[in-house]
Amino acid sequence: MKIIRTPEAMQKHALDLKRTGRSIGGVPTMGFLHEGHVSLMRLARAQCDVLVVSIFVNPTQFGPNEDLKTYPRDFSRDESLCEQAGVDLLFYPEPTAMYAADASSWIDEASLSGGLCGATRPGHFRGVCTVVAKLFNLMQLDIAVFGEKDAQQLRIIERMVRDLNFPVNILRGPIVREPDGLAMSSRNKYLSAEQREAALCLRRSLDNVEEQFAAGERNTAVLRQTVVDWIASVPGAELDYIEVVDDRSLAAVETIESDTLVALAVKFGAVRLIDNAVLCRSP
Amino acid sequence: MKIIRTPEAMQKHALDLKRTGRSIGGVPTMGFLHEGHVSLMRLARAQCDVLVVSIFVNPTQFGPNEDLKTYPRDFSRDESLCEQAGVDLLFYPEPTAMYAADASSWIDEASLSGGLCGATRPGHFRGVCTVVAKLFNLMQLDIAVFGEKDAQQLRIIERMVRDLNFPVNILRGPIVREPDGLAMSSRNKYLSAEQREAALCLRRSLDNVEEQFAAGERNTAVLRQTVVDWIASVPGAELDYIEVVDDRSLAAVETIESDTLVALAVKFGAVRLIDNAVLCRSP
Repeated sequence: MKIIRTPEAMQKHALDLKRTGRSIGGVPTMGFLHEGHVSLMRLARAQCDVLVVSIFVNPTQFGPNEDLKTYPRDFSRDESLCEQAGVDLLFYPEPTAMYAADASSWIDEASLSGGLCGATRPGHFRGVCTVVAKLFNLMQLDIAVFGEKDAQQLRIIERMVRDLNFPVNILRGPIVREPDGLAMSSRNKYLSAEQREAALCLRRSLDNVEEQFAAGERNTAVLRQTVVDWIASVPGAELDYIEVVDDRSLAAVETIESDTLVALAVKFGAVRLIDNAVLCRSP
Repeated sequence: MKIIRTPEAMQKHALDLKRTGRSIGGVPTMGFLHEGHVSLMRLARAQCDVLVVSIFVNPTQFGPNEDLKTYPRDFSRDESLCEQAGVDLLFYPEPTAMYAADASSWIDEASLSGGLCGATRPGHFRGVCTVVAKLFNLMQLDIAVFGEKDAQQLRIIERMVRDLNFPVNILRGPIVREPDGLAMSSRNKYLSAEQREAALCLRRSLDNVEEQFAAGERNTAVLRQTVVDWIASVPGAELDYIEVVDDRSLAAVETIESDTLVALAVKFGAVRLIDNAVLCRSP
């Protein structure tokens, strides 16, 4: 496995590979890798000649009061995990190399980005879109895999790829969960033992929504209230949002008539976790 | 010369060329081609294996009161000119194929775009950046040539390429002028005989600025006033702006100490023309 530290070297290497007809698959990450990331690497590995993983804690997608400085990092562990997963190239740039001091070009997705996580994290998806476009260009990806845990991010990236005609095939990687149902996240390590237990409320309240949906409930106000009540009953859990939206437009839905995304974010002290489920009209 | 009408076919063809190691040079245009465009094609032709020209009157870079509908079009003449210039591929998409009805991803350059043409054409450079990025992705360009007549556009595109890491080498094509000095433009055809004569004021007032600069004048207020007075003396000419700015940051300059861009826009009835000159500190 080759480790590349500069954007220039990454792009040159990738362009050389492309010119010889090799296909490149990639998994952009912020590091502190877990089994969720590894599952994305496996998905990409099966469909490309060369597998590239990037590890970059992107400063432009963190708000001023968010956890950029404390975001967990462990490069040597990440390196081992990538090696084991059959990664060919590990792109690990310095933040200062990725953004010029006078950087001024940004990608805004103006339709899907306003609600859900975008409502409480202004500027977040502008940072995500911009860095993902940069990574597409640097790593020259034919295929890129993103996890379904970040449901809104995934849909925004798919939209950006369509709108800006990036020649990248986006694959969706299913959510990987701990045995008790908690969605894997680099931020789970922040949780105290009590918070770790409380954090099960995300998946369990979604289970409850899915059960009600299966039983015929189509009124989203009822489904949302279920989650509001559930989270309110959990000590130490503070609901950031619960939204029930159209799975394509991410517009609010009153009565479920087509594929619908149920997404929530819950805070446990300073730790904010997300999870989601898709309610399919015709399963 | 092959003519390609859909974005999908264009991208597939370009990706196939790239995989066989061919380099692609391109000239994005809005058609109604003139000798200025042809000079850009010659520049690209000399440095690539495959030369692509796009003809697309991009709706997103026109304001609601601008000349999208009346912008001159003559495809069969453009086709002949491209054929004569040795163009391999002519990309000529339908507007509806280039933008989805719910397109929502846009590229904003936030530093260089505010002044000059950006001040009187809000949203113009967002449209330009977005369509240029789309064309880069569709035509898979290694080299792209843009004309120096659109000085601000050129600098914004160079900035976007740097900031978003597009693997495209931008070449600057010198301004091509009519024998009497008028910069070539597709919009020149709108001019009446009187306006055509009056339009010489752009180049002549810039000549005058260059003469003053050569004689040692470094006060930009003095240089600007020269142009304001010159244009005011020309019947039928209405100054849109005259700016004297740093050639890299496009920030206003009071005393010239480094390379400086002098750019102006002048209206003749409904026709708006631009021109510019760079004052080099060390020629």
